[in-house]
Amino acid sequence: MTLAGALDRALGLVREVIDFPEPGVLFRDLTPVLADRDAFRAVVDALAATVPPDVDAVVALEARGFLFGAALAAVHGYGVVPIRKPGKLPAVADRVTYDLEYGTATFELPADAVRPGQRVVVVDDVLATGGTLAAAAGLLTQAGAEVVGAAVVLEIAALGGRARAGLPVRALRVV
Amino acid sequence: MTLAGALDRALGLVREVIDFPEPGVLFRDLTPVLADRDAFRAVVDALAATVPPDVDAVVALEARGFLFGAALAAVHGYGVVPIRKPGKLPAVADRVTYDLEYGTATFELPADAVRPGQRVVVVDDVLATGGTLAAAAGLLTQAGAEVVGAAVVLEIAALGGRARAGLPVRALRVV
Repeated sequence: MTLAGALDRALGLVREVIDFPEPGVLFRDLTPVLADRDAFRAVVDALAATVPPDVDAVVALEARGFLFGAALAAVHGYGVVPIRKPGKLPAVADRVTYDLEYGTATFELPADAVRPGQRVVVVDDVLATGGTLAAAAGLLTQAGAEVVGAAVVLEIAALGGRARAGLPVRALRVV
Repeated sequence: MTLAGALDRALGLVREVIDFPEPGVLFRDLTPVLADRDAFRAVVDALAATVPPDVDAVVALEARGFLFGAALAAVHGYGVVPIRKPGKLPAVADRVTYDLEYGTATFELPADAVRPGQRVVVVDDVLATGGTLAAAAGLLTQAGAEVVGAAVVLEIAALGGRARAGLPVRALRVV
């Protein structure tokens, strides 16, 4: 199967769940994609194909972004920097609080994980409102990194997150 | 460098932080290992070497277990099943509340992610009291899976978690 064919098959496994986590929201559940060996690898390889040359590290966003970002990093030869929810990291470089599709959240960047001038790509599962990516990019820029872009599995076009994210985003599929 | 040499170098990057997340606890921070491409890959490959034959899927525990479990799965050809903290999954097969080193927690297993008779290995970053692994194993067994063992990066021997975990645990390093 071609990579494009494998990716089509993989994304066909996404499960749509209505009214989660709250009424009116259509949630895209990637669990079936993760659980299928070939589907997971196809998505990881397709994400890797979006990464520009000379990138030094992948930044993965807690928690679903960890699954895709760490896999991309390990398969394709990058280190992975986890951006975490508050209180989890013993040594924090900086933190930011931001709005998301339903509520607010805080992100923390680990100390010493990003060096000034380092080129990084941010990985997450879904681009929704873009607030999460914008917050991560802000933290990384503040730490001196060059955020060359973001890679996501799905982009929910109706939420307009691409504009708000404020960085180049490559999505494997726009829904 | 040999795999053993690469693993020694990788685990030498672990950062020890005293009094986190509370006084008296020595926290092992794996962030520097993750951020180093070669170290991360050495750990992932060493974890994979502990996985018995004929395993069908890797189960990764939220959140740090996601980083290692998903990477192992993607590099070495497994699907990955995330066991998650409560409220994150839109469709839940079962849940369990358990004690951990500091406090209590609840885990949820996604619906339809594990088939009866499937052979799975659980991956997490650190074996502490063993409560987390025991809870995960219980959820998986309840769902009909055969939990053939667990793989962790570090085992904190003084906490006696190996006995409490109740399943064969392979640790890359005992501290």
